[in-house]
Amino acid sequence: VDPVIVIHGGAWAIPESLAAASVEGVKQAARAGQAVLQRGGSAVDAVEAAVSLLEDDPAFDAGTGSVLNAAGEVEMDAVVMDGKTLKAGGVACVQNIKHPVQLARLIMDKTDHVLLVGKGANHFAEEMGIPTVPMETLVTETARKEWERFMKYHETIQDLFSNRDLQAGCDTVGAVALDKTGNVAFGTSTGGITAKRPGRVGDSPIIGAGGYADSQVGAVSSTGHGEAIMRTCLAHHITTLMQTGQSADSASKSALDHMTQRVQGSGGVVVVSATGEVVANFTTERMAWAWVKDGELHYGLDPGQHEKECL
Amino acid sequence: VDPVIVIHGGAWAIPESLAAASVEGVKQAARAGQAVLQRGGSAVDAVEAAVSLLEDDPAFDAGTGSVLNAAGEVEMDAVVMDGKTLKAGGVACVQNIKHPVQLARLIMDKTDHVLLVGKGANHFAEEMGIPTVPMETLVTETARKEWERFMKYHETIQDLFSNRDLQAGCDTVGAVALDKTGNVAFGTSTGGITAKRPGRVGDSPIIGAGGYADSQVGAVSSTGHGEAIMRTCLAHHITTLMQTGQSADSASKSALDHMTQRVQGSGGVVVVSATGEVVANFTTERMAWAWVKDGELHYGLDPGQHEKECL
Repeated sequence: VDPVIVIHGGAWAIPESLAAASVEGVKQAARAGQAVLQRGGSAVDAVEAAVSLLEDDPAFDAGTGSVLNAAGEVEMDAVVMDGKTLKAGGVACVQNIKHPVQLARLIMDKTDHVLLVGKGANHFAEEMGIPTVPMETLVTETARKEWERFMKYHETIQDLFSNRDLQAGCDTVGAVALDKTGNVAFGTSTGGITAKRPGRVGDSPIIGAGGYADSQVGAVSSTGHGEAIMRTCLAHHITTLMQTGQSADSASKSALDHMTQRVQGSGGVVVVSATGEVVANFTTERMAWAWVKDGELHYGLDPGQHEKECL
Repeated sequence: VDPVIVIHGGAWAIPESLAAASVEGVKQAARAGQAVLQRGGSAVDAVEAAVSLLEDDPAFDAGTGSVLNAAGEVEMDAVVMDGKTLKAGGVACVQNIKHPVQLARLIMDKTDHVLLVGKGANHFAEEMGIPTVPMETLVTETARKEWERFMKYHETIQDLFSNRDLQAGCDTVGAVALDKTGNVAFGTSTGGITAKRPGRVGDSPIIGAGGYADSQVGAVSSTGHGEAIMRTCLAHHITTLMQTGQSADSASKSALDHMTQRVQGSGGVVVVSATGEVVANFTTERMAWAWVKDGELHYGLDPGQHEKECL
């Protein structure tokens, strides 16, 4: 099987100031993931490597660059799933961890649980010897300013939560991959949405919402309006439609359309099918995406945009 | 539309000592939910009332009667979903709350989030004026003894987590309902599994795993091996199969069978379709279930057992 990797850097109204960095970031992650696959690495290894790179990139709301919650703190969610075994690991509301996706991988590999949240997730990290980092090292000046802007316009907590603009900063990152042995995987990571309630968990760490992977069908990683994605199980909806014979393109458009119709939510997905069909579809203004297939790097940001480079 | 309610009290190897209390508990909850529906209450009101009653019943692992985690503490998960709007609210790893399902309902009604976990969920409870209760009031002697038995046989934490018997106590409670206006809802609540890692979240509060409700299709509440249910998105799998035209019975059997085949997990579900078809299916040794339909109370515990009473 010819290996494939597809990356997204979040689906939202990405401002011009972040456009170039977002596109460059997903291209780099696609190259890094493809390098893992080319030397025979598994789909899980490839998505972990790609998402780790995106977590390090301050242009994205995941790991370093995560947005701040209403209490001015960073709480992160991440997940990884192996389509061969349907094993999965996720963390939610974890703090002071540089690479949440790597912690999610350890939950998948070393425990019989799927999801650990809050202090319990941090205790597990400690047990595994994952170092904690000061919160400040994860916070960029952009994230801090966005938080200050948000808090200034909302004088009370009640006001904050009743009048929020859900489009504000939801640039989750994610990856799906198909490896040489024909297995698929997905990984997703996020800092969530600016000024979210402490304890709020979005779609990213939820199997079936933030992504799904089944080597008999394909893999999906989602991004966008987290609550809408959870309420419609966006990723599992797509793989289920693919299982009935729909193409990845048709299934992802149907499921995104269903989400618009039923819950007025917008978002985006990257998909790879078990046969190597690749798709990056979104209903938001923009989504940074990139994929590597057959020795070519493809990428885009605006609707209809599709650039190509030989590797 | 003739209103219907279906209840489960957990799918596992229910011991004889709990059998009578489990059956009595689900029957009471079915009657309570049906009373809400008869006086014109919504499906959401009915599942909230029924699950609250099950949370109060010490025979079940939810609210009062919750099992203890490895640290000897109670951490509870609950969720509710309205099939009309696909709105949902869930809490995970919440402590010192008498009725987690009522807190989940408030998240659905009063916030634009879907899931709050840990301390954030408790802060929200405080904001809503929900009183906290001492942990001891939620712990039964049975739960304490089960924890002691479990801890005695596992000398280290590592040993505890690598050799656990996943069948030990997973009697989540749940309800699905169809109201007079034709809308469906589901609610699920649990204390999880004895000696789980602190911070572990199972299927119960996860939309698509612990349950799903869509008034165009039907509603499902799941129970059993939580990690297997999450990895296969059991509830959403069932509603998606129903959407393609399968009956609730056929869809739930197919999805449970898929879970056995792909991840060697067992569990049970209660389902009501938008047209009033009701089902209680399980692949575990036992599941306590009850439903009220057309003035009759149906219930059972063992495979094939189906009793009837006129109301």
